[in-house]
Amino acid sequence: MAKGLLVIISGPSGVGKGTVIQRFIHDPALNLAYSVSMTTRKMREGEVDGVNYEFVSKDEFLRARDNGELLEWAEFVGNYYGTPLKNVEKLREEGKNVILEIEVEGCQQVQKKCPDAVSIFIIPPSIEELERRIRGRKTEPEEIVQQRLDKARKEMSMLQNYKYVVCNDDVELAADIISLIIERHIHYNQDKQQ
Amino acid sequence: MAKGLLVIISGPSGVGKGTVIQRFIHDPALNLAYSVSMTTRKMREGEVDGVNYEFVSKDEFLRARDNGELLEWAEFVGNYYGTPLKNVEKLREEGKNVILEIEVEGCQQVQKKCPDAVSIFIIPPSIEELERRIRGRKTEPEEIVQQRLDKARKEMSMLQNYKYVVCNDDVELAADIISLIIERHIHYNQDKQQ
Repeated sequence: MAKGLLVIISGPSGVGKGTVIQRFIHDPALNLAYSVSMTTRKMREGEVDGVNYEFVSKDEFLRARDNGELLEWAEFVGNYYGTPLKNVEKLREEGKNVILEIEVEGCQQVQKKCPDAVSIFIIPPSIEELERRIRGRKTEPEEIVQQRLDKARKEMSMLQNYKYVVCNDDVELAADIISLIIERHIHYNQDKQQ
Repeated sequence: MAKGLLVIISGPSGVGKGTVIQRFIHDPALNLAYSVSMTTRKMREGEVDGVNYEFVSKDEFLRARDNGELLEWAEFVGNYYGTPLKNVEKLREEGKNVILEIEVEGCQQVQKKCPDAVSIFIIPPSIEELERRIRGRKTEPEEIVQQRLDKARKEMSMLQNYKYVVCNDDVELAADIISLIIERHIHYNQDKQQ
């Protein structure tokens, strides 16, 4: 059995990543799996350790990070989040294709450790269209909308770090094309390992 | 019969655009055709007017351009080159999918006139790899190599103007994935026009 792929999906907030991924995540031909992330944030009611997240203390997190046990990590509002390499590797060894939905900085970290990762960035048809989507989604303070747009512009200037860029103009089309890219890489991977 | 697609392929000099395109240009499933470009440069021995190029005078070219008859145009070392809209439209009306291999500026001109064009930018795995390919190809003066690399960096900061970006790490893989993108768009186009 061939070792599974590592697939990275990134894209600005509001581009519709979640909707696109939902359309192909359960496609049996793609054999995809999410890996369990590690976090220092408090467990919420209904969450299960080792299922939703691997809940750890800040010390444990930093030790794992400093020991090179994390494929990528980031800090959000005082909590740490990371992708343990061993969780990803276990799934890949079982032949699963692991999908990571991460930020641009995370992608750069992963690509250093796994240069064969299939990285895909989803872009909006234009910044104007992204703005319409962000504003249409919910009423957010103007300051937050502007922060999201600034971040999107910054991210979109780093597209050359990805292997593929796909425009989400039509959700069905974007999801199909990402599926085709992943499927083609699965075959490529299998051929190489034979 | 559905009207054909307009497919734009761009990418920095040295990225291997020609090699990639050669792998799928004759694929019958894609039904691709090149349109004949217009130029003011002198006809070379063996070239046929209306086959290799539509050879015109500078006055004729500028008149066509100013009348909005060109989908895109550019000037290279004193000669003008352009894509007559009517040549492209004729092929598309016949159901052919027209492929244009053009520069970033040309792509922006085309997208204004044909927002439904399927634009694909081919990137190298890295600027360092592009440099290796440019240097490996032939012995060019250092100045020219640096000019090519500067141009590539500038082009690669404009990737967000394309619908798709595909990395040419492995020629076969890149060509297959571009074929898959074009094929998916052919079906999308046919469905929409039904």
